[in-house]
Amino acid sequence: MADNPVAKPLLRALARERNAVPPIWLMRQAGRYLPEYRAIREKTASFLDLCFNPKLAAEVTLQPIRRFGFDAAILFSDILVVPHALGQHVTFEAGEGPQLDALKEPSAIERLRPEIDHVELAPVYETIARVRPELPPSVALLGFCGAPWTVATYMIAGCGTPDQLPARLFAYRHPQAFAKLIDILTEASASYLVKQFAAGVEAVQIFDTWAGVLPADEFRKWCIEPVARIVAGVREQIPTARIIGFPRGAGTELPCYLGAVPVDAIGLDWMTELSFARDQIQPLRTIQGNLDPLALLAGGAALDRATDGILEAFGGSPFIFNLGHGILPDTPISHVERLIARVRGHV
Amino acid sequence: MADNPVAKPLLRALARERNAVPPIWLMRQAGRYLPEYRAIREKTASFLDLCFNPKLAAEVTLQPIRRFGFDAAILFSDILVVPHALGQHVTFEAGEGPQLDALKEPSAIERLRPEIDHVELAPVYETIARVRPELPPSVALLGFCGAPWTVATYMIAGCGTPDQLPARLFAYRHPQAFAKLIDILTEASASYLVKQFAAGVEAVQIFDTWAGVLPADEFRKWCIEPVARIVAGVREQIPTARIIGFPRGAGTELPCYLGAVPVDAIGLDWMTELSFARDQIQPLRTIQGNLDPLALLAGGAALDRATDGILEAFGGSPFIFNLGHGILPDTPISHVERLIARVRGHV
Repeated sequence: MADNPVAKPLLRALARERNAVPPIWLMRQAGRYLPEYRAIREKTASFLDLCFNPKLAAEVTLQPIRRFGFDAAILFSDILVVPHALGQHVTFEAGEGPQLDALKEPSAIERLRPEIDHVELAPVYETIARVRPELPPSVALLGFCGAPWTVATYMIAGCGTPDQLPARLFAYRHPQAFAKLIDILTEASASYLVKQFAAGVEAVQIFDTWAGVLPADEFRKWCIEPVARIVAGVREQIPTARIIGFPRGAGTELPCYLGAVPVDAIGLDWMTELSFARDQIQPLRTIQGNLDPLALLAGGAALDRATDGILEAFGGSPFIFNLGHGILPDTPISHVERLIARVRGHV
Repeated sequence: MADNPVAKPLLRALARERNAVPPIWLMRQAGRYLPEYRAIREKTASFLDLCFNPKLAAEVTLQPIRRFGFDAAILFSDILVVPHALGQHVTFEAGEGPQLDALKEPSAIERLRPEIDHVELAPVYETIARVRPELPPSVALLGFCGAPWTVATYMIAGCGTPDQLPARLFAYRHPQAFAKLIDILTEASASYLVKQFAAGVEAVQIFDTWAGVLPADEFRKWCIEPVARIVAGVREQIPTARIIGFPRGAGTELPCYLGAVPVDAIGLDWMTELSFARDQIQPLRTIQGNLDPLALLAGGAALDRATDGILEAFGGSPFIFNLGHGILPDTPISHVERLIARVRGHV
């Protein structure tokens, strides 16, 4: 079936057109809160095995589209496939999150591949190619990568860390070696996103989950500049590439970020003040966000009130409804149904 | 020795006067990074025993003044003495942080004392009375409390928690019971601060360490409104009371906070963008902050550069140099010496 990009609400929003009903998708919409996801996950030996199995990864990408009718599907994968494709050992132990061979010394960075190995990532591209023709004509397909800073925090620490202390300390103590790592990740990410577009995604999101822990100077060096280079690198190959930035926790840095990073849309976390965002951010870019995932988990009056507040603040201009971070695994499905119905004006 | 408040640089800064050399103190300046602190801590059975021992608490309050010559001493205590004085069981296990009997159900809030028990807190007031006459004439004495939201996150969860999920969920699910808890803490905190002033502190800081995890609406209800009521309650008794607010992570909420909370100064975390703060916050209030504690731990060029950037941004207007959060236990003493010398223009 031929699809008409102009008719897809998500792509209209990225082109700064306002939809009468805002498009909606949810970060981590393919995930553990869905019984059909858990059934497939149980069949695979590890989380990475699922990411690298095109048939099953395509299936879990499509599950939330079939169940909820979201306006976008997002490739099922993980930001840590990039360190994997750079030669770092990455595993996911059940219930423990990612484990990597930590880059403890500057010399460890020299042992990474200087360029990303697209052969390792071929299953990701095949997943995209499988999903695209299965989507309803109004549903856009999103790819993604982690931003260099966020990916580097895992590569340095070897795991998820509160406040990302190991990476921040490494960057203070070894700024040249850290800049080298960021450079490798910047090149790798741009190349990875170009291949995702070639395989069939229609827009991508750059997740900078841990952007919020950096002081202004480090935010400029390790978040703004690398992501600006990724956007430029992707658009050198694909001039019309649509890109969403998500510098979680950027807060007062958002105007600086948007002054330097020409993304089409900006994902806002749930802590961002609504009138600040409406008055100072939405005139510059399409806004995506920013429901507290915990309000979705809680449901009831708290969910309705939070949903209405976001629609009221952002609904009058180009806008994509989303959470302010990934959906929590314990979220009841009925709350997701309620949210979608409310955003679409049915309840 | 009679002291002249006008001559104390910290009090001048709180009165919106600019000092040629900005006053400096550091959050958690009395603490584990000091060998003389560790020596005293080893003599006490528990952390709370130290907080409630006026002789030893006074001694550790004074230690960093003697060693470094900071411009302010801050009472050695903990924000969780307030739940203790409301009847909740609080302990600190070595290396594990605080443990409280978690308030799991709305009914648990009914079992708290409706008013704070000042008899429980008498050792704190005695500590203040012991410290004040020991301070050099230019050094101000600060008291403090935790803001109701931040204290409530520990009371609900029973311990420190990433993203403060239990308290946020409790507030979504049981808004009336949570409001009752916040009311109790608001009254208790105002009363506690009034007693601290009566005992001899010259200014207080209200620590809202976990303010940054709340969406706009919840930030207004659980952070802004209670802290505004504390400030009003304290000033009803002590009209000239000097108060510093520290809503860590408030970011884009800072203008809302300052529009509603008449604190004299605002403590900024290290993630706050410097030009935003200089242009939009410093015209409204004296700024206190905002060095990354990890830059102090790292030292070297990273520390000097971060220090200089803050002095350049804020030094031209009323300003108090501080960290953006508490000093880290592994911080070398030589780095603290270097920081103070640089702020005072000696290196």
